[in-house]
Amino acid sequence: MSDRERSFWAWGWADAFPDESARQALAMQVGALLGRSFSPRPLPSLESVRLAAPRVLPPEALAPFSSAEAEDRILHTYGKSYRDVVRAYRGDFSVAPDWVCYPRSEEDIERLLAHCAAEGVAVIPFGGGTSVVGGVEAAVGDGPRGVVSLDLRRLDRVLEVEPVSRSARIQAGATGPVLEEQLAPHGLTLRHFPQSFEFSTLGGWIATRAGGHFATLYTHIDDLVSSVRMITPAGVWASRRLPASGAGPSPDRLALGSEGILGVITEAWVRLQARPRYRASASVTFAHFKDGVRACRMLAQSGLYPSNCRLLDKTDALLGGVFVDGEAVLLLAFESADHPLGPSMDRALALTAEAGGVCPEGPVLREDRGDGAGAQATYKKSFFRAPYLQSALVSLGVLADTFETACTWDRFEELDGAVHDAVLSAMQRALGGGVLARRFTHVYPDGPAPYYTFLAPAREGHELEAWAAIKDAASRAILASGGTITHHHAVGRVHRPYWQSERPEPFAAALRAAKRAVDPAGIMNPGALFEPDER
Amino acid sequence: MSDRERSFWAWGWADAFPDESARQALAMQVGALLGRSFSPRPLPSLESVRLAAPRVLPPEALAPFSSAEAEDRILHTYGKSYRDVVRAYRGDFSVAPDWVCYPRSEEDIERLLAHCAAEGVAVIPFGGGTSVVGGVEAAVGDGPRGVVSLDLRRLDRVLEVEPVSRSARIQAGATGPVLEEQLAPHGLTLRHFPQSFEFSTLGGWIATRAGGHFATLYTHIDDLVSSVRMITPAGVWASRRLPASGAGPSPDRLALGSEGILGVITEAWVRLQARPRYRASASVTFAHFKDGVRACRMLAQSGLYPSNCRLLDKTDALLGGVFVDGEAVLLLAFESADHPLGPSMDRALALTAEAGGVCPEGPVLREDRGDGAGAQATYKKSFFRAPYLQSALVSLGVLADTFETACTWDRFEELDGAVHDAVLSAMQRALGGGVLARRFTHVYPDGPAPYYTFLAPAREGHELEAWAAIKDAASRAILASGGTITHHHAVGRVHRPYWQSERPEPFAAALRAAKRAVDPAGIMNPGALFEPDER
Repeated sequence: MSDRERSFWAWGWADAFPDESARQALAMQVGALLGRSFSPRPLPSLESVRLAAPRVLPPEALAPFSSAEAEDRILHTYGKSYRDVVRAYRGDFSVAPDWVCYPRSEEDIERLLAHCAAEGVAVIPFGGGTSVVGGVEAAVGDGPRGVVSLDLRRLDRVLEVEPVSRSARIQAGATGPVLEEQLAPHGLTLRHFPQSFEFSTLGGWIATRAGGHFATLYTHIDDLVSSVRMITPAGVWASRRLPASGAGPSPDRLALGSEGILGVITEAWVRLQARPRYRASASVTFAHFKDGVRACRMLAQSGLYPSNCRLLDKTDALLGGVFVDGEAVLLLAFESADHPLGPSMDRALALTAEAGGVCPEGPVLREDRGDGAGAQATYKKSFFRAPYLQSALVSLGVLADTFETACTWDRFEELDGAVHDAVLSAMQRALGGGVLARRFTHVYPDGPAPYYTFLAPAREGHELEAWAAIKDAASRAILASGGTITHHHAVGRVHRPYWQSERPEPFAAALRAAKRAVDPAGIMNPGALFEPDER
Repeated sequence: MSDRERSFWAWGWADAFPDESARQALAMQVGALLGRSFSPRPLPSLESVRLAAPRVLPPEALAPFSSAEAEDRILHTYGKSYRDVVRAYRGDFSVAPDWVCYPRSEEDIERLLAHCAAEGVAVIPFGGGTSVVGGVEAAVGDGPRGVVSLDLRRLDRVLEVEPVSRSARIQAGATGPVLEEQLAPHGLTLRHFPQSFEFSTLGGWIATRAGGHFATLYTHIDDLVSSVRMITPAGVWASRRLPASGAGPSPDRLALGSEGILGVITEAWVRLQARPRYRASASVTFAHFKDGVRACRMLAQSGLYPSNCRLLDKTDALLGGVFVDGEAVLLLAFESADHPLGPSMDRALALTAEAGGVCPEGPVLREDRGDGAGAQATYKKSFFRAPYLQSALVSLGVLADTFETACTWDRFEELDGAVHDAVLSAMQRALGGGVLARRFTHVYPDGPAPYYTFLAPAREGHELEAWAAIKDAASRAILASGGTITHHHAVGRVHRPYWQSERPEPFAAALRAAKRAVDPAGIMNPGALFEPDER
């Protein structure tokens, strides 16, 4: 555990929040984009937050690893979505949990669950607290007598590294950097880099089916997990560590995406990789976005499996500080620990050229064992910096959020058009205008994962209503055009009403029944996935 | 539908069963291997089979697409495992279903399920009838008043081909050849080739999580499915067609491997591929099996993704008619529709050489669009011929069966040793000796899928007891050594007791509850996965 402090309202470390001059610069940049002027507003202070008294308190037996202190409750009230940051910025922590539990062991968790089941108190597993869908928010309905936030930070160890199969057994509370640091001496990496990497945890990735950073092949945590251990109120759900199995429906695949409603994930065996040694990268520009789309489709269907195949439209590139001489740029990269990538890159560039792409600077091929240098590292840095900027934008009075989906290639153009129409008109209606940017984060043989960023001038005091109207318009457009409500941000409480129309109804009935079987008291994260009273 | 007749007792087409001279040759070959003499016994006749009268009959409304004729009931009594073929060879069809339903539409299925739920009659979905684990056998306990076999053969159409995303919507009753024939004019292929390919169906593959033929990457049907449509007694379970999603646990992954206990899979959207154009293949021999294992591990972890990486030990090669100058041979191949494979094959052969492998004839690189020629085609032919030979061996008085598993690399040597000890002693005890062969069918970064074949002289009248003793010994050895009870043969009724110790108990409770939610009358394939009375 680090002594460094997390911001109580904004993304990330308190000391890494953009300073006054950085906020001024950001205000200039976004002002130019939106044709308005913005200026930094005062930042909130922890001292001014008022919390209601807890309705329930930790029993004596759990007190040694629990806290009902205000700061603990405040730091466990929200995830980090736009609406979370806005509410926290306002000092509104009315949905704070009653207390926070920091178990030291699975036994502590079992004791906590037994207590909560007996007392009718809800339990919300909490990893890095980076949910953007209300996944860790204590909006649990009127049933429970209180809410405990179960923070897994003390369970952050790599317990075993097994180098022959390149696997490790890791505790669920380990964040990205903490687990990578423990794997590095073995020359191995989990190579799972969601944008929340610095704070989010293995358990959170599994519970929310995190997507990771890479465009193709092994990037989803779903595919990196070889077994899951989960404590349910009905006992331990522990699968066998296996490279593959055809024995019935996969127990891991039911734990993946379960968002804390079935139990608390405590550890997993995961598949590691050797650190990449060979790298190849290139930037390809396109006169038209649709040509870039075609190039991505050809690459996704080529069997070349680029590690990055990130298509940005002009606006999205601009938000990332990249000027594009055209309507789109494709950030293309290959990585391998085993073999040089010249042939793959050559073929990939031939395909992008066929689609009208231009690569004026040619590809860059490198051989090294570090992560430290070059365009890739620069990009990574700005990638991980983006969430800090979103919080800073809130403090400038800018409404800024992202959403993502996945759809098949044949449906993308219609979906993209519908999303643009819906979001631009919703921003116009609510806020008099705004900007929408798009990129592909992942590409599959049968479709892309489009990712959208929208920015608009917020109206103070009405941020949440405006956001809700835009989010609703975007979500409806996505569902009507054949997309999924989320590619890698989970369902939580925010996507719940939309997920209701996406999921097969008998499946929902089956999942509710599964929950009742392992959580008969209904204490596990009520309100995530299902309505709190939907049983 | 074909006019060609399926054998009522043996694998496959009746007219493709090995003739007298082929049986003689097989007797010589296996005689040499087992040090005994065998000779062809008389083949059974359909006419001599005696069936009990059906306990229930199709109601009038369902009669137009149902049959209680003896031949229909006989052809739907068993799958095609050793014990199925032995019982059928003996003329024992005592577990025949009462009648067989051949629905023409989803409406027919809905009417059937409504009837059966009302009447307490069990329903067993039947695709190609190639189960080797008792998955379609009417051993449903004492609860149901009767059993209907639901044969999906009339639902065998490719309903839509969507070329941009390379996807198709296909009915569940389509067999491998029937669906590939419909896809061929589009230049696309599902490229899913389980050994049962000629007879097994898309729906069966999904219900049993079929593994396919390829060693790495997209080979499991799990990864080829973009949505599943399943009729449950509680309604239609239809997921959205998507390239990926992170919205809650995957509904498709709960249907995959559900073995008919939740509902009847009627169609799926599947991911297709362009037909391969570039091919590279090589045979690499090893002085020691463990060197071949090391080579497979290096290849699996290299990111080269061979389409074949099939390691055969000397005995396994011999059974396939290949003589090996060493203890093991690796059949290595790459395929691509997009790019030449020289660099991949070169690097792969460098890795196998590092592990001690020798490739005296060098690699073969070809460019073509046909499947027709070369070693690959020859191998494929013998691969698909093998199940015919197993049935022929039954008629020679030879006990012959296969089983498979998957385990992590660190555990393979121990598992393999335990399996050899267990199976060889069980064969010794039961039958005075026998032969055990092994191969890897699939390789993953974290472990192989070992596949074993055993042959022994059977004792007439005691085949099933001997088989059960050997199977039990093998299964216990696998589970004790950290393997899974099945990599791609499903659970059914045969693996059920072993799966009980593999699966997490809270997961089993969740799955039983899910079943109750969508199948409240408990009519769907009782006895598969769970005990018939386990609810």
